[in-house]
Amino acid sequence: MSAPEDRPELGIAVVGHSFMGAVHSHAWRTVDHVGRPRFRTRRRVLAGRDAGRAAAAAAQFGWDEGVGDWRALLERDDVHVVDILTPGDSHAEIAIAALEAGKHVICEKPLAKTVEEAERMTAAAEAAAARGVRSMVAFNYRQVPAVGLARQLVAAGRLGTVRQVRAVYLQDWIVDEEFPLTWRLQADRAGAGSLGDIGSHIIDAAQFITGQRLVSVSGTTETFVKQRPLPAAEAGVGTGLSATASTEMGEVTVDDAAVFFGRGDGGALMTFEATRMALGRKNGMKIEVNGSAGSVAFDFESMNELWFYDGTVPAPENGFRRIFATEPEHPGVANWWPAGHGLGYDHPFVHELQEFLSAIADGRDPAPSFAEGLQVQRVLEAVQRSADNDSVRTPV
Amino acid sequence: MSAPEDRPELGIAVVGHSFMGAVHSHAWRTVDHVGRPRFRTRRRVLAGRDAGRAAAAAAQFGWDEGVGDWRALLERDDVHVVDILTPGDSHAEIAIAALEAGKHVICEKPLAKTVEEAERMTAAAEAAAARGVRSMVAFNYRQVPAVGLARQLVAAGRLGTVRQVRAVYLQDWIVDEEFPLTWRLQADRAGAGSLGDIGSHIIDAAQFITGQRLVSVSGTTETFVKQRPLPAAEAGVGTGLSATASTEMGEVTVDDAAVFFGRGDGGALMTFEATRMALGRKNGMKIEVNGSAGSVAFDFESMNELWFYDGTVPAPENGFRRIFATEPEHPGVANWWPAGHGLGYDHPFVHELQEFLSAIADGRDPAPSFAEGLQVQRVLEAVQRSADNDSVRTPV
Amino acid sequence: MSAPEDRPELGIAVVGHSFMGAVHSHAWRTVDHVGRPRFRTRRRVLAGRDAGRAAAAAAQFGWDEGVGDWRALLERDDVHVVDILTPGDSHAEIAIAALEAGKHVICEKPLAKTVEEAERMTAAAEAAAARGVRSMVAFNYRQVPAVGLARQLVAAGRLGTVRQVRAVYLQDWIVDEEFPLTWRLQADRAGAGSLGDIGSHIIDAAQFITGQRLVSVSGTTETFVKQRPLPAAEAGVGTGLSATASTEMGEVTVDDAAVFFGRGDGGALMTFEATRMALGRKNGMKIEVNGSAGSVAFDFESMNELWFYDGTVPAPENGFRRIFATEPEHPGVANWWPAGHGLGYDHPFVHELQEFLSAIADGRDPAPSFAEGLQVQRVLEAVQRSADNDSVRTPV
Amino acid sequence: MSAPEDRPELGIAVVGHSFMGAVHSHAWRTVDHVGRPRFRTRRRVLAGRDAGRAAAAAAQFGWDEGVGDWRALLERDDVHVVDILTPGDSHAEIAIAALEAGKHVICEKPLAKTVEEAERMTAAAEAAAARGVRSMVAFNYRQVPAVGLARQLVAAGRLGTVRQVRAVYLQDWIVDEEFPLTWRLQADRAGAGSLGDIGSHIIDAAQFITGQRLVSVSGTTETFVKQRPLPAAEAGVGTGLSATASTEMGEVTVDDAAVFFGRGDGGALMTFEATRMALGRKNGMKIEVNGSAGSVAFDFESMNELWFYDGTVPAPENGFRRIFATEPEHPGVANWWPAGHGLGYDHPFVHELQEFLSAIADGRDPAPSFAEGLQVQRVLEAVQRSADNDSVRTPV
Repeated sequence: MSAPEDRPELGIAVVGHSFMGAVHSHAWRTVDHVGRPRFRTRRRVLAGRDAGRAAAAAAQFGWDEGVGDWRALLERDDVHVVDILTPGDSHAEIAIAALEAGKHVICEKPLAKTVEEAERMTAAAEAAAARGVRSMVAFNYRQVPAVGLARQLVAAGRLGTVRQVRAVYLQDWIVDEEFPLTWRLQADRAGAGSLGDIGSHIIDAAQFITGQRLVSVSGTTETFVKQRPLPAAEAGVGTGLSATASTEMGEVTVDDAAVFFGRGDGGALMTFEATRMALGRKNGMKIEVNGSAGSVAFDFESMNELWFYDGTVPAPENGFRRIFATEPEHPGVANWWPAGHGLGYDHPFVHELQEFLSAIADGRDPAPSFAEGLQVQRVLEAVQRSADNDSVRTPV
Repeated sequence: MSAPEDRPELGIAVVGHSFMGAVHSHAWRTVDHVGRPRFRTRRRVLAGRDAGRAAAAAAQFGWDEGVGDWRALLERDDVHVVDILTPGDSHAEIAIAALEAGKHVICEKPLAKTVEEAERMTAAAEAAAARGVRSMVAFNYRQVPAVGLARQLVAAGRLGTVRQVRAVYLQDWIVDEEFPLTWRLQADRAGAGSLGDIGSHIIDAAQFITGQRLVSVSGTTETFVKQRPLPAAEAGVGTGLSATASTEMGEVTVDDAAVFFGRGDGGALMTFEATRMALGRKNGMKIEVNGSAGSVAFDFESMNELWFYDGTVPAPENGFRRIFATEPEHPGVANWWPAGHGLGYDHPFVHELQEFLSAIADGRDPAPSFAEGLQVQRVLEAVQRSADNDSVRTPV
Repeated sequence: MSAPEDRPELGIAVVGHSFMGAVHSHAWRTVDHVGRPRFRTRRRVLAGRDAGRAAAAAAQFGWDEGVGDWRALLERDDVHVVDILTPGDSHAEIAIAALEAGKHVICEKPLAKTVEEAERMTAAAEAAAARGVRSMVAFNYRQVPAVGLARQLVAAGRLGTVRQVRAVYLQDWIVDEEFPLTWRLQADRAGAGSLGDIGSHIIDAAQFITGQRLVSVSGTTETFVKQRPLPAAEAGVGTGLSATASTEMGEVTVDDAAVFFGRGDGGALMTFEATRMALGRKNGMKIEVNGSAGSVAFDFESMNELWFYDGTVPAPENGFRRIFATEPEHPGVANWWPAGHGLGYDHPFVHELQEFLSAIADGRDPAPSFAEGLQVQRVLEAVQRSADNDSVRTPV
Repeated sequence: MSAPEDRPELGIAVVGHSFMGAVHSHAWRTVDHVGRPRFRTRRRVLAGRDAGRAAAAAAQFGWDEGVGDWRALLERDDVHVVDILTPGDSHAEIAIAALEAGKHVICEKPLAKTVEEAERMTAAAEAAAARGVRSMVAFNYRQVPAVGLARQLVAAGRLGTVRQVRAVYLQDWIVDEEFPLTWRLQADRAGAGSLGDIGSHIIDAAQFITGQRLVSVSGTTETFVKQRPLPAAEAGVGTGLSATASTEMGEVTVDDAAVFFGRGDGGALMTFEATRMALGRKNGMKIEVNGSAGSVAFDFESMNELWFYDGTVPAPENGFRRIFATEPEHPGVANWWPAGHGLGYDHPFVHELQEFLSAIADGRDPAPSFAEGLQVQRVLEAVQRSADNDSVRTPV
């Protein structure tokens, strides 16, 4: 016996099939079964740059078919959503075309290579929204339950006035000077280095949690390893960040590390560091927020925990408390496992799709919108301008 | 374009649809897309005790259909695997019938309510194996990459002679005296209390990691809360351990906590504690192993970490090192995410299915076998006998 | 200009000058200057077994003189306090003689080699108390601020009914099979092995924190390394546990590890493990207490922290909180440093002397008394009897 | 019997008797008994601003006498060492006078209120050194064994090329807006706020560990609370940072928080934050150093631990290792307690005095010298200039 199904169905397409392709595909396979989204979804098509490899990836990741050109998606009536997972240099073109073709769009971060592109994307998103077509930029760390809880505590006034934020994103996957020059290390493909790739995450997280937007920044960047071997030709379906080196060398055109500080529009003093050279730190996205009444601290390497210091507790029995953010009341958790049975890297991507589908059903814009993605892009650009100008304070 | 598919397909059935139903369904939905198992799998049917609720659960969790009686599975040619997720009192009947019907069986732990049942199940499994029909008991914690790494380190001699093990499994979900008397608190349904439910996990983990089997034990059990409200009638599809109380009271017939120690056949001294009354500990399955040359420590609340002390490192620069068990070389990880992007509670269930499918393809018994489940059952029973006999040392 | 001093002075003598001699001497040098004890103290004399080495130790540790025989102290009018730091086999003789000579006595733990000795010491202490002469057994871990805070929380009802205790004391200094057979490994000198030496600490701590006394126990012990080299002749003034091996071998007559569980007189189920073979654990004295309303956890390797779970906090924002036990309100802290400026291993010894001096001034018995030391001795003996009798439950 | 004593004796004087007076006095009382310094020391005189309070403090802290004017020390033949613990505005005057009077000087940090003062002090120190008179600035965190170990690992090449440093010093003792305007919050007394008080510590620690000196910085500062109650009149002998408020208000003239980044002369990118507003962080002096071959991390709230990531260990078994820096081989530890028996806030002050006394005996300058203190002062001043100039990169 089968239960009747009367929810409308959305046909989904993804563009891209490496690391993010694997993660988003897992999320699309899962989202139907966690809670009850208001749409059923069907994984119609995976687009790549090569038809054969796209077909293999589609089979691997559970899509009906693979195609070698994302433009093919625009014509199809059975595709209602385009999920963009490509390097940053193609976001603007794909997203704008998809929105104009009436497809809802979810796009990986950072939104674009440049502020100018992000502005065009945002304009396209706003035009599309007027026609009921939705768009979202995929800052997945917002969807970590512990991060959502942090935002709730700030919003509820539990931290008082937010005065300080310190956020770092520490990775180490390019410490080895022989690690090859993949697209993430090429300015013309990725747009930016660690600043754009992972710095954008902590900018968004800091603004998301505190509700404050950065209004000025001072920063600097560094490329410790100036030359790297070019990568060997790509092959197969990869799910990670690893790569194989060839013997030819090329110039690294993005930063290895970026540091900056700035002020929020609510007066908070915020510090940031994004680096892929912090040996031993694998995915150390950490953020601490101090307010006049409380503090919170988060480290993605222990992603199910939020540390909360409630300043109203008497000093002799106060301390940071380790909230295991796996209770049903925590954002996104209710439809998963019992308390204490933690989530992993991929679960927040399901929450992201839940938000996306809910917003479509509600007829509202999902969060974060392209406009929010644009604002992050403006921060990135201001940091770069500051870095190019002796770190002088630069308005966003 | 679609890639050609020539792997044979197995039809899967699950029996049960509460907490374990949700988790196993997620794993079955996922296993096809993580690496390339040698079978494709199709989620044919979910069996419950009520046809309507089974149909709803099937729709929710992604099965083709739901049925109200597991016996219906035995006849079906399109079902090759039966995955048993029911309370312990029905494991023996279902598993033996399924094996006799030629279905491969994976059965939740603890294997059975009694040693006698487990012996019959093991006999059935061995008879079935002779016909190429496979069976496995689902000790999921073995499949946590950090736990698998611990076993690898012991097996490679990195710990030297294993001398001590301390294992605890700490939960707190029945601390509230008003928590109702669900099936897990009824001896005739669950077979045992915390000793069987979670004690079985740490017995298996200790033996798995060390390669030593317990040969004698001394223990005691305690029921701190002797009476609880009966549960309100069940409704809907739940994924957790929570429940609603009625106003009628009933007697708790299982233990709230069990503690015991014992000796391994390799001479190790091992201590165990299983409790659902450790307020603040949500799923604190922790194990530490000390050998003559090294130590490892694991805590499921930080499930992506294995702490390893390598005694060969000079003292002034030695210390427990926090291995983030998310490297591609770690057991089960290669097909997931990049290093540092941790897994959650559910991913090891995928690894479990990978082992199950590989063993079927290889024509070998998966691990852990019913025989291993039986041995754990014998330990549980020896602990209970010791507890009933002034904690005197009792052979397994 | 000097401030006038009108507090009475006590002359102090210590017996013993190895590890505990160094620590107690530091505490005696310090106690006058932390807060304002009601007695001034003068470090009169250090007694050893060899006059020359005692004189060297006295000079090193800051005593007026050194003597080669503790009996010399009994006659001296300028000695009011005898602090006994010798191996356990001489505690009874020295303590009883000192008490009979009218000296206040503080004696290292465990109180004695046997229950019979401890009984005689307690009788002597009680007779002395009737004459205003005080005695104390030196369970220093009670004096750790975080441990004192744990007791306060239990006493204030913040944990509700205490249901479970798990206490371990993990060291690794004899893992190396070539570590020599020092007095601590000889039953006739030390009385007991890890059970007596460090097991006594966690028994006392568990009873101190919970206010419950153990009434029955089941245990076992193990000597993993049966033979060790005899130590080379002692030389110089040592402050630690290290030693040099000779080439001759001897039999180890104490346990390397002991594990046991038991019941408190308030119904708590308690587990214990004492071992010197937990490779990588240097001084891992850890205790966790779970009650119906809260839990606390402590680890001496992070001795300034108490972890407290207050069950009355709503679940979504609850978690173990790390109380940094360095606030002025915490037991013993007020006269030390500002919050966050942690204490070390030696500071609780100062607190111990503060309690000792306060009790003398108050005309009351200090805590813990010899009677408490005797009760711990009875627990140790019951564990040993249980271990000798197939771990059967044995009344204390 | 007393051991003969033939070491020369130094007469010691301290100037100041609040928090640092308590800590240094404890260290001076202790240093004679930890190892065997080449000088005996006698605690001759404590100088304050009020003779009566100085006498009381002298009695409390164990000095022969107290005097109301530090100038009295200069004439005394029995004073060989002057230890300066006063607010920063008097360092220069006292230190220069003492050096000119032929006294060895140890001076609390930051060295002075201004670079100009620090330059005069350094000139005086260098002139004095030519006459065999020694001087030292008291950066106590250098003396933490874990910090010393970090430096050793860098110096031994275990981290390879140091590329990044992130250092924060987080306190929260002035979060409360009613906390009074003590001297540490007054620019004319303290010289600087958190930047000078605690920022100076992390600048020194970063340079000490890495061996690199900051050559340029960009920074900003913030005073979140602009007005505070004036303190009530001081009374008694205090050992901490606490204070009592009056009803009158005054303007806060120092920063509450300072953030900056900079470059080391070896190319490292370093970030710094000093704040007294990080609610819940009591004394969170944390530093992490990433090199091409390894990383270290330290947090003073767990001061006995150094976390070391050795990049040469194969990835699948690598991780940050928690070195418990209590082994006899660790800097400063050998004369304290056995491994695992941790030190506290005060012990490094003893190490500092050991270095000071050793240097006097050796006829060399102790480390850190006044010249090093001057260089830190120059960094502080460059940060302030950058902060006053839109955070523009400013050479040191």
